[in-house]
Amino acid sequence: MKAFKPVRGMRDFLAEEARLMRFIEEKARKIAKIYGYKEVITPVVESYELLAAKIGDEMRSRMFVFKDLGGRDIALRPEFTASVARLIATTLRTEPRPLRTFSFGSVYRYDEPQKGRYREFWQSNYELMGSNMPEADVEILMLTNSLMESVGLKDYVFKIGHIGVLRGIFNQEGLEEKTQNAVMQLLDKKQYEEALEIVEDVGVSKGCLNIMQELVKLKGREVFTITEKMRKLVDGYEEAVKALKNLHEILKLIRESECKIDIIADAGFARGLEYYTGIIFEVYVPEFDIALGGGGRYDHLIELFGGEPTPAVGVAHGIDRIMLAMQMQKVIVEKTEKAVMVIPVESSLKGEALKIAQMLRAADVPVEVEVMGRKVTKALEDADRRKMEYAIIVGCKELNEGAVVLRNLKRREQKTVKLEEILKELKVQVD
Amino acid sequence: MKAFKPVRGMRDFLAEEARLMRFIEEKARKIAKIYGYKEVITPVVESYELLAAKIGDEMRSRMFVFKDLGGRDIALRPEFTASVARLIATTLRTEPRPLRTFSFGSVYRYDEPQKGRYREFWQSNYELMGSNMPEADVEILMLTNSLMESVGLKDYVFKIGHIGVLRGIFNQEGLEEKTQNAVMQLLDKKQYEEALEIVEDVGVSKGCLNIMQELVKLKGREVFTITEKMRKLVDGYEEAVKALKNLHEILKLIRESECKIDIIADAGFARGLEYYTGIIFEVYVPEFDIALGGGGRYDHLIELFGGEPTPAVGVAHGIDRIMLAMQMQKVIVEKTEKAVMVIPVESSLKGEALKIAQMLRAADVPVEVEVMGRKVTKALEDADRRKMEYAIIVGCKELNEGAVVLRNLKRREQKTVKLEEILKELKVQVD
Repeated sequence: MKAFKPVRGMRDFLAEEARLMRFIEEKARKIAKIYGYKEVITPVVESYELLAAKIGDEMRSRMFVFKDLGGRDIALRPEFTASVARLIATTLRTEPRPLRTFSFGSVYRYDEPQKGRYREFWQSNYELMGSNMPEADVEILMLTNSLMESVGLKDYVFKIGHIGVLRGIFNQEGLEEKTQNAVMQLLDKKQYEEALEIVEDVGVSKGCLNIMQELVKLKGREVFTITEKMRKLVDGYEEAVKALKNLHEILKLIRESECKIDIIADAGFARGLEYYTGIIFEVYVPEFDIALGGGGRYDHLIELFGGEPTPAVGVAHGIDRIMLAMQMQKVIVEKTEKAVMVIPVESSLKGEALKIAQMLRAADVPVEVEVMGRKVTKALEDADRRKMEYAIIVGCKELNEGAVVLRNLKRREQKTVKLEEILKELKVQVD
Repeated sequence: MKAFKPVRGMRDFLAEEARLMRFIEEKARKIAKIYGYKEVITPVVESYELLAAKIGDEMRSRMFVFKDLGGRDIALRPEFTASVARLIATTLRTEPRPLRTFSFGSVYRYDEPQKGRYREFWQSNYELMGSNMPEADVEILMLTNSLMESVGLKDYVFKIGHIGVLRGIFNQEGLEEKTQNAVMQLLDKKQYEEALEIVEDVGVSKGCLNIMQELVKLKGREVFTITEKMRKLVDGYEEAVKALKNLHEILKLIRESECKIDIIADAGFARGLEYYTGIIFEVYVPEFDIALGGGGRYDHLIELFGGEPTPAVGVAHGIDRIMLAMQMQKVIVEKTEKAVMVIPVESSLKGEALKIAQMLRAADVPVEVEVMGRKVTKALEDADRRKMEYAIIVGCKELNEGAVVLRNLKRREQKTVKLEEILKELKVQVD
């Protein structure tokens, strides 16, 4: 029979990778807890209409879409925000604001597979809904910083922009939303020339074109210098000035909070998702050029899904990429558990071996019982090969005296230990 | 705009339900750890051919099947075993045996939605591969028992049978595999008469029909009485006798291990999945008639997927149903964290409020910062309504002396506390 493989673009996580993934998940859960974000679990499968509503043409064309047996148009979620917005517009409509939600799980996009880009990938997602204040934006930035820090990344940077600046200029120049979205998609891919060409083609003012040309060049770590230069450029575009004031307030609040976040302000920065209305940001490591996470403010999405007008800001973190970044920055996640193998010397002692195993497990000790019917030496070799720490050999002679042989596989030492002393002895050897 | 809903048969887990789900997941992970099962994470989407190979007609007809943009026939996994068997037959082919794997995630079946039955549901899955010994079967039963116990269920029972007994009789009577599978499907649904009709129609011996009629009636907690009666009935069917011996050994070993498992032996018990070859079992609570989990031995599946011949035994637990059973048995899962809300008295103190929040979070305290720009009294009302424990009010006067106001929302008391004393004070109030 032919060898089966995972579907193209998808992958398996084996023991070590799965451990790393769950390590990150645990940190993401802890961040949710200490920042007060309550988990919601929404289905992987949602109606196509919901998922496609405000996601942008590009992502829409890369969704896994199909029909269920009832003929419904459904799709695998390419992100979490639409599902969470659905909840806020319906079930959670009357919950008091602010509402903070956390989600963790797999999402699906039919992208060309490459390093750090899979068709099934994992995200942690945080949404803060009900507040239009800059401290809400700052909170989302801070918790993202906390996550990067807590998984052990040493070197990463936030790219921050404000979609309201560009939208403000375009609106005043009378650009249609569709054209604006096309320009944003190009800026997202750093195709500045192509983006400027579109702007020129639709016939904006000469002044606007100049401003655009200057704006896309403005970026740097001197964030207040950047915002000051932006302010001079967008003078006269009322909406854009307001947006810039908001960006300035957010950056100022970060400085006041003394939170150490490495930030590059980028005036020509846009993101692929169409629903953003305010600040947008992405996190990068120097080792590769795909973002580890990104988010921003989206004040109209929940309304669009039939909910009350609800300002909101959120972020999604790419777990697969964080994992890759950790490997590149050589972050070591220590294994803490010491594993014990319990080996009965003869078949009639299997029941006793199981009993001892259960006693140790009740004290949270990881225990494998020999289940291959092997002789003790063979079983010990196997335990050694699989880097276990201890073996307990259950033999008649010792058992008659209420004892077993405890072998330290690393030190290659063994001694006879009373059953009631095993736990204490294991603890001593660990300490 | 119309109100979006989850796709029919799927559901959202809000904060409390998500907490319960993650509580069970945590227990399932702990069981994996103390029994030595290493996690593997396989994709939700697999090739249709893989998933459909040995799953049984009924489940096959209820799969979510579609094509990806590359025209591949793919489907959402209806269970984990096929994916794990794929791994063992390929990537993990040369890993030393035994191999113990653990998986946790969502699976998909197009069933008619009802209480405890959803189209997206959650499973924990444990597979022990490489051993054909009874202690391997016992281990899977024991860990299932440990899981039920650790989530706090008080009353549950294991239904245990052995598919080899029925298969042994049918093989000797010359029943085709397809017919056998049809009979098993009917027995699985307790449609004993219909099952016996098929057996009669294909023209088995009169003796065999009598045996079948007696077998399907045999069940009870006196497991060794049941196996003894079975032994008498199947006398002369060599394979069936061997299977029964295996079942007896397993039950004996459970008794010897002194593990308290409430067991009903059931001679007419079958399961829908076609790949079983040995012991099969399911776990029930008295409150409803859908199994909380089930599994069994499948010695030929890995071979079928192109791997080395590998005996194996495994189990899947239905997380949604365990959750339902916990609610029915009134299991209470305590919340342990005490939440703090940090409220700046005026806008200029937002940065200070964020700083204090970060200090507390660094010590694992769950903190929400007021982000609605509300006055202190309004924010306190909200914290109260959402049942938070403490509020920290950040005001100019206190801050000038390096202090804040700490309010115990339950006791409705407050006092001024130095910044460096907050953590200690919170700890005192909790203890």
